[in-house]
Amino acid sequence: VAIIGASGEPDKIGGRPLSMSMAAGFPGTIYPINQKSAVVQGLKAYASLSEIPGPIDCAILAIPAPLVAQQLEAAAAAGARVAIVYAANFAEIGEAGFREQEEIAAIGRTLGLRILGPNCMGAFDVRARFYPTFLQAFDHFGGKGWPTAGSVGIASQSGAIGAHIFVMFRDRQVGISRFVTTGNQCDIEIADCIECMALDSDTRVIAVYLEGVKHGDRLQRALSLARTQGKPVVILKVGTSRAGSLAIASHTASLAGEDAIYQALFRKHGAFRATALGELVDVAIACEAGLYPASKEVGVISLSGGGGVILADACEQAGFTLPPMPDLAQKKMREIVPFCAPRNPVDPGAPAMTDISLTLRFLEISVEQGGYSTIFLFLTHLGYVERMMTPLSEGLRTLRQRYPERLLAIVLLGPPEVCAGLRKDGFLVFEEPLSAVRTIAALASIALHRNRPPMVSDLPDLPPISIPASTKEIEARQILRKVGLPVAPEIVVRSPIEASEASRIFGCPVSLKISSASLPHKADVGGVILDVTEPAGAAAAYRELIERWKRLKPDESPDEVLVSPMISGGVETILGARVDPLLGPIVMFGRGGVHAETNPDVVIRLAPISLEEAIDMIKEVRSLSFLDGRNGHSQFDIASAADALSRLSVLVAQYAAEIESIDVNPFIVLPDLKGGFAVDALIVPRRMRPEDAAQVAGTR
Amino acid sequence: VAIIGASGEPDKIGGRPLSMSMAAGFPGTIYPINQKSAVVQGLKAYASLSEIPGPIDCAILAIPAPLVAQQLEAAAAAGARVAIVYAANFAEIGEAGFREQEEIAAIGRTLGLRILGPNCMGAFDVRARFYPTFLQAFDHFGGKGWPTAGSVGIASQSGAIGAHIFVMFRDRQVGISRFVTTGNQCDIEIADCIECMALDSDTRVIAVYLEGVKHGDRLQRALSLARTQGKPVVILKVGTSRAGSLAIASHTASLAGEDAIYQALFRKHGAFRATALGELVDVAIACEAGLYPASKEVGVISLSGGGGVILADACEQAGFTLPPMPDLAQKKMREIVPFCAPRNPVDPGAPAMTDISLTLRFLEISVEQGGYSTIFLFLTHLGYVERMMTPLSEGLRTLRQRYPERLLAIVLLGPPEVCAGLRKDGFLVFEEPLSAVRTIAALASIALHRNRPPMVSDLPDLPPISIPASTKEIEARQILRKVGLPVAPEIVVRSPIEASEASRIFGCPVSLKISSASLPHKADVGGVILDVTEPAGAAAAYRELIERWKRLKPDESPDEVLVSPMISGGVETILGARVDPLLGPIVMFGRGGVHAETNPDVVIRLAPISLEEAIDMIKEVRSLSFLDGRNGHSQFDIASAADALSRLSVLVAQYAAEIESIDVNPFIVLPDLKGGFAVDALIVPRRMRPEDAAQVAGTR
Repeated sequence: VAIIGASGEPDKIGGRPLSMSMAAGFPGTIYPINQKSAVVQGLKAYASLSEIPGPIDCAILAIPAPLVAQQLEAAAAAGARVAIVYAANFAEIGEAGFREQEEIAAIGRTLGLRILGPNCMGAFDVRARFYPTFLQAFDHFGGKGWPTAGSVGIASQSGAIGAHIFVMFRDRQVGISRFVTTGNQCDIEIADCIECMALDSDTRVIAVYLEGVKHGDRLQRALSLARTQGKPVVILKVGTSRAGSLAIASHTASLAGEDAIYQALFRKHGAFRATALGELVDVAIACEAGLYPASKEVGVISLSGGGGVILADACEQAGFTLPPMPDLAQKKMREIVPFCAPRNPVDPGAPAMTDISLTLRFLEISVEQGGYSTIFLFLTHLGYVERMMTPLSEGLRTLRQRYPERLLAIVLLGPPEVCAGLRKDGFLVFEEPLSAVRTIAALASIALHRNRPPMVSDLPDLPPISIPASTKEIEARQILRKVGLPVAPEIVVRSPIEASEASRIFGCPVSLKISSASLPHKADVGGVILDVTEPAGAAAAYRELIERWKRLKPDESPDEVLVSPMISGGVETILGARVDPLLGPIVMFGRGGVHAETNPDVVIRLAPISLEEAIDMIKEVRSLSFLDGRNGHSQFDIASAADALSRLSVLVAQYAAEIESIDVNPFIVLPDLKGGFAVDALIVPRRMRPEDAAQVAGTR
Repeated sequence: VAIIGASGEPDKIGGRPLSMSMAAGFPGTIYPINQKSAVVQGLKAYASLSEIPGPIDCAILAIPAPLVAQQLEAAAAAGARVAIVYAANFAEIGEAGFREQEEIAAIGRTLGLRILGPNCMGAFDVRARFYPTFLQAFDHFGGKGWPTAGSVGIASQSGAIGAHIFVMFRDRQVGISRFVTTGNQCDIEIADCIECMALDSDTRVIAVYLEGVKHGDRLQRALSLARTQGKPVVILKVGTSRAGSLAIASHTASLAGEDAIYQALFRKHGAFRATALGELVDVAIACEAGLYPASKEVGVISLSGGGGVILADACEQAGFTLPPMPDLAQKKMREIVPFCAPRNPVDPGAPAMTDISLTLRFLEISVEQGGYSTIFLFLTHLGYVERMMTPLSEGLRTLRQRYPERLLAIVLLGPPEVCAGLRKDGFLVFEEPLSAVRTIAALASIALHRNRPPMVSDLPDLPPISIPASTKEIEARQILRKVGLPVAPEIVVRSPIEASEASRIFGCPVSLKISSASLPHKADVGGVILDVTEPAGAAAAYRELIERWKRLKPDESPDEVLVSPMISGGVETILGARVDPLLGPIVMFGRGGVHAETNPDVVIRLAPISLEEAIDMIKEVRSLSFLDGRNGHSQFDIASAADALSRLSVLVAQYAAEIESIDVNPFIVLPDLKGGFAVDALIVPRRMRPEDAAQVAGTR
């Protein structure tokens, strides 16, 4: 290892990687590079990389931005395969910095040198005793703040947040395997760290802080590998407030913001998304224990009625059930304490507050006979009461050895070492009931998704098509028909007489709409007339639409209007698809019509999806929960909508390079097995120039 | 003070109140009552209350349940005004225990003796050095776990949860004023404790754990007093999972469960409802500091870009805005660190990680020039880095003295004493960004409601009415008309001819419905036919309804049917009211029609409410947010719905003794200023016998 810019002062940025690696007993050779001193922190120093006696694996660059490019070349010449660049003032400061960063990235690519950073805090590997970082987080407690070797890997885009996460784990006495901060990610990004930790035998769970990715495919590959390797990934993904800043050219784009796509991506690959640092840490620690709830049935044992109620509330809200203890178990409990509450939640009653062996007996009966895959144990502040905690810890340890597969979550206040001791014995320990229940719910969700087999290839086959260059509805309709979506019939008319003729062919009521590439969101500008009840009305509606069209687009020569029969008795939904520049093709389903804008309620998946996944999606839309006929309402043809959704997803995935977005709004789902119909369709092609896209957006 | 059942062993239930009060230096006289010993813990003991030399204020009963009644009488005879009863085995064990509890409550009432408990853990008053409790929470840390005197009052129905809350405060080095556990609440209940603490000059904030109340009016009075006294009340109310167990005789009852009513009650009186113990403690500590955000504008300063993003996300989600720093401030910041991020969030950049004075300068500029009422400061784990924390603490203290009114929330990891030190200097300190933002959001909500003046009496006047004994719709319609609700017109018809006649009078389309007291939820059983388009159809519909009626109720002689015109072009809402047996009359507004059941979205308030409050309520229903005409949709007549809602609320409040519930579902709100119409009405009178109520419920 060479440290370029190595400092003799152990607390400086150039001094820390050296002082910390030496203090940790790093067994490799370190070459300090320093132009002014012959000795740095007791090691022989060199004026430049060209003078060091042997080849290096890794170069640490603790030097200002302007010097980085040159030293990267020198490092590659010295045999380095990785360089860690601390310097700031690259892409994060704007255009000029961005160009310099592109330059060093190009150097790395050309010379086969992987780069961590720039603008990062480095990394560390506890077992390798290698600390190429300038983190200040170890000096704590008079130098006793060093990480212990454990199995949690931390990958963070931000150095300070990485440090914060590390210290939160350390405060809970949880050990670390590897720690990486990626900073500006000119080369190595979070996906690479996840991949590396997925293959690292010392790492059992990967805790990630993510701001954004440049290559969605890499992230997907890494998460997929982690799942294959059985390593849960817990991610805090931030930047939700930026979703609104995306350019918006369609309903789907505005509803399926960047954040929702990340959500879909994590879900697809079984990664758990935490909403806060505390949750990230809680869930990662719980994953490290390696036990997952096998069912939704939980038991609650509480030293107080109140604790039982709080836990029961939280369990019900999280979707767990609390089946009563079996009769025999209840009988046994009553034999021990006549006035106990033996159902579930179980409360051993007042005697247990002074005689802890009673609590242990109740717990034992619950574990043996309750059949719950998870048991919550509320012990309030007993962790602080030594005379009770000592026998309790022993009893719990014995129980754990007899039932190693049972998930036991303890709510307990006590000194850190008492809580850490229980964790080492395989228990999950929480300060309060809500975080206990939320964490177990997270484990349940992780277990559900980690066991899902990767998608099987039961996707519909589509015939070859070509994506049109315009946003004209009639062209979108033809493509959707070709790929197998049911589209309401239409007749293109060019005069009032043709309009009334068409209405006679379909039978009234009919709808009429402008057919123009320049007015894709025609409904919003009066370009659609619904519920025309007689042929004469259709002719009048034609004339009215042509008038409106002329007013809206004085430069065009309006002519074509689409006449369609009204579809009644169905429910309006929206099917959508779009291709995110970073994260790829997605598909969306939700409540349609006027609701799509006023109260968006949509579900998103990465495309393509199978029919089965589409059915799952449809069932997730809360405001459409009545579609499956519950509460005595009629049942709607979900399968028809799901088939359309699956086909749409394959379409957008296969033609991702050519499609910007697709809106089918509304897609009317009919009752019983009567199918469904796309009633309006818009395909925005990708090759559209930005000016055109802006125009399309502007007409909304 | 007399302790009946005083024990010589200081750790027993009968020994603790004595040993702890003595250890604390309680200045009053304690008489241990013990039949076997002449001396207890060094004090002269007495065989019975009749032998003590002087009168007492308070009797502590550390004796089993069967002995309690007799000793209460003796305590009253000895002059006691309060008795604290620890014994369990009362109402919590079932019917027999409940009767015994009623008995001791009666003794208390008769003799003028207030009772705390039974089945409680007692109370303590730190400044009075009085510890009439058997809590084990003070032995911690070799006896160093005693509470310090502070200004947080704790009132908990559960002893163990009360202890848990106390220890959470103590772990954060926050002092306590008074602590009470109420147990089975045969007399003194949580409301009394809130009232007492509201008047206690040592208490500045009241932290409450509540399971349920027996007297909603007392709770309302107590919360109202606390608001008048300027004491924030933070409540964890549990038992949400019990809501489903309420007897359900109407839509309103099923939608407005007990829990939602508590929510409305807390809201009305400006109490903050916490969702978890951690939040309860965080918010109470923040209230104690006494500063509230004056606006929704916040500034964020973060030692790392990541911290800024996390805080910005959380702030946006919580409804805060992050206006940019003024230009001058940004210029100043750039002068200090050229490549800093000076907008908002502010990131001083890498140099600040080593030179903490830079962070202080940036903070100072933000406080001076940013105009934010709240500033979040993200300092990651610096609390552990002594050489940085010492100057930082000093700098912060100076700043605090210069700007005492500014709310400063710091996210920081560090040893408890560092965090406690910052708290004592008036800062709010959090382990992670999310809890920081949530707590400030809680403060904003408390500030909003605490400053609201008590409701002014601009309620509509109602003419006197009499509530009918049956649930017949026509009677409900007449009452609603009398109190000023707009009800769609109807004609009662008794033959097919009359039905077609009525449809001619109104003009088609019309609706027909069964008018029977035994089929209040007629729509669910086919008792309504909508959209009849011609008079002949109306006659046929009449016949069909009579047929259905005969099948549903073979014992009745069906005759009356209501014919009404169809109201089209409006939005279906539901107006409801009911009288909760504990919490009193409430009023409800939400989305109506089929949605009311499939996707309930309702808002509840305690009745009565003014027109203005009704408008507020309507605006809170998310799925009806389009009513006010946003997004280019037409505007609906909200004022008409609000007037109806306010009148309904006065009706249910004035006739609370006679009304069980009222459903107006749907109430159709028309566009523009066209008003609205009640289209279906059901009043369930209170005097209905339970069997009848069950029958009504059964027909749904």
